[in-house]
Amino acid sequence: MIKLFEYNWQVRNDWFDWCETVSREELMKQRIGGIGYILPTLYHIVAVEYGWICGGIQERLIDIPSFEEVASLQQIKDFSARCHTEVAPFVYAWDDSLEDRIMMDILDDGTQEAHPFGEVLRHVIAHEIHHIGQLSIWSREIGKEPVTANLIGRGLFRF
Amino acid sequence: MIKLFEYNWQVRNDWFDWCETVSREELMKQRIGGIGYILPTLYHIVAVEYGWICGGIQERLIDIPSFEEVASLQQIKDFSARCHTEVAPFVYAWDDSLEDRIMMDILDDGTQEAHPFGEVLRHVIAHEIHHIGQLSIWSREIGKEPVTANLIGRGLFRF
Repeated sequence: MIKLFEYNWQVRNDWFDWCETVSREELMKQRIGGIGYILPTLYHIVAVEYGWICGGIQERLIDIPSFEEVASLQQIKDFSARCHTEVAPFVYAWDDSLEDRIMMDILDDGTQEAHPFGEVLRHVIAHEIHHIGQLSIWSREIGKEPVTANLIGRGLFRF
Repeated sequence: MIKLFEYNWQVRNDWFDWCETVSREELMKQRIGGIGYILPTLYHIVAVEYGWICGGIQERLIDIPSFEEVASLQQIKDFSARCHTEVAPFVYAWDDSLEDRIMMDILDDGTQEAHPFGEVLRHVIAHEIHHIGQLSIWSREIGKEPVTANLIGRGLFRF
């Protein structure tokens, strides 16, 4: 589980670097599918990971800014770094005994849904990879090479 | 690890169902980014999973057909089902003692690279989710709702 989070964090930071090479106009241009814009996609990835892990599983009172409050690349990088300092300790403390612990998710209509922690963590992992796949298409539309999605070759495994 | 494979297999089959509702022309229309076409993307996902797990890790002599040999939706569904019967027993027999076992990957230039089994499995998981994210963009380009990428709510976890 931990390695897949590390992969996502590394890839996310590579995309932040990629964003530095692209105009703000391209980062905020409306596109087809997904969240519809590059920068809001990166914001969304950060907010969802933080919301599920720190708000949902840890039941902490968290403050997630709206996109408009962090609408620049630098602010979203800062938002990501801030969330990371709160998310990472939980991920690194993960052990399999937490798999079946249950969190309650309160839906918009007030009803509650129960989810095992293990399901939530995998949801968060898949969520980020999925949206990053979307960025890779938009990158090619701009005529730029996307960040590599390869997990192998990132130095995540030492042996 | 197993749950993320189950997620991928379920999503992949949902995309096969989605393909049934789309013309062959759309499935084979050239698009920007990724593998460049919907049907070859699904072929590629199957071939990569099968290649790494049955060819790479298990060191079996496997036969991966070219895309041209399985170029219809039905043939790719059959290819996926055939590979699944070979991949699934390995995935379901996974235990953490296999994490650090090493496989040798022979590169095009003849050199070899060593990879722990755990790295390969996570690579295969992330690879499929990434390409499925790309399909979701192309789906919207066609004007169709994509298959949901949500891992939560798929009934993968019983408790």
